[in-house]
Amino acid sequence: MRNAADRVQAITDTVNRYIELVAKGSADDLVELYADDATVEDPVGGEVHIGRQAIHGFYSAVDGVARECELVSLRVAGNEAAFLFRLTVTAGDHRMVIEPIDVMVFDDRGKVTAMKAYWSAANVTQG
Amino acid sequence: MRNAADRVQAITDTVNRYIELVAKGSADDLVELYADDATVEDPVGGEVHIGRQAIHGFYSAVDGVARECELVSLRVAGNEAAFLFRLTVTAGDHRMVIEPIDVMVFDDRGKVTAMKAYWSAANVTQG
Repeated sequence: MRNAADRVQAITDTVNRYIELVAKGSADDLVELYADDATVEDPVGGEVHIGRQAIHGFYSAVDGVARECELVSLRVAGNEAAFLFRLTVTAGDHRMVIEPIDVMVFDDRGKVTAMKAYWSAANVTQG
Repeated sequence: MRNAADRVQAITDTVNRYIELVAKGSADDLVELYADDATVEDPVGGEVHIGRQAIHGFYSAVDGVARECELVSLRVAGNEAAFLFRLTVTAGDHRMVIEPIDVMVFDDRGKVTAMKAYWSAANVTQG
């Protein structure tokens, strides 16, 4: 069992890695952060993707799209994290900014076992 | 069944009411927002308070303490909400600011069935 400070650091590192990969990584990279039987619900209230194959399919939608991502606020508590971030997607002259709050649960190995993303059309700006 | 816009509005109103009551309300007021069998985990990783009696006990700690509360960012998705807020507690010359991210789940009647608060000592500033 790792001590609390190490656990907080490991979770913080994984969230920062996630933000980096949402900006620059592939679905192959992103799925590596998840446990085998992990779940992803993005947005909350939508379809729940269960297992790494389904999660890979979910992230494949962003492969090849020009995007930037920035962590705005991070809270780590227990084996979980909640964080506000800003995702900018650019396609030609069109620019879309989404600002979700994500929640992640981690296992003892530091893998994400559950991710839920809180956002709606109200949190998307076009320009 | 209410439509989606009404549901979002009802959840938004309840979160704003919660912030108002964390600032100015009593434990009696706060517990009214919760369903009978609701759970409160604040902070995440700590004790889970189950049911309105236990939740009332949890909020009793803030009764009589001078405090201000401000909603910073709110995301509503499905039957849930995630929000970043700033709580300032003042005791004499001492001022403490806590900035948690809370997640709430709502039932069909708009009552909170689960609340989880993401914060740690790292999100508390003294001054």
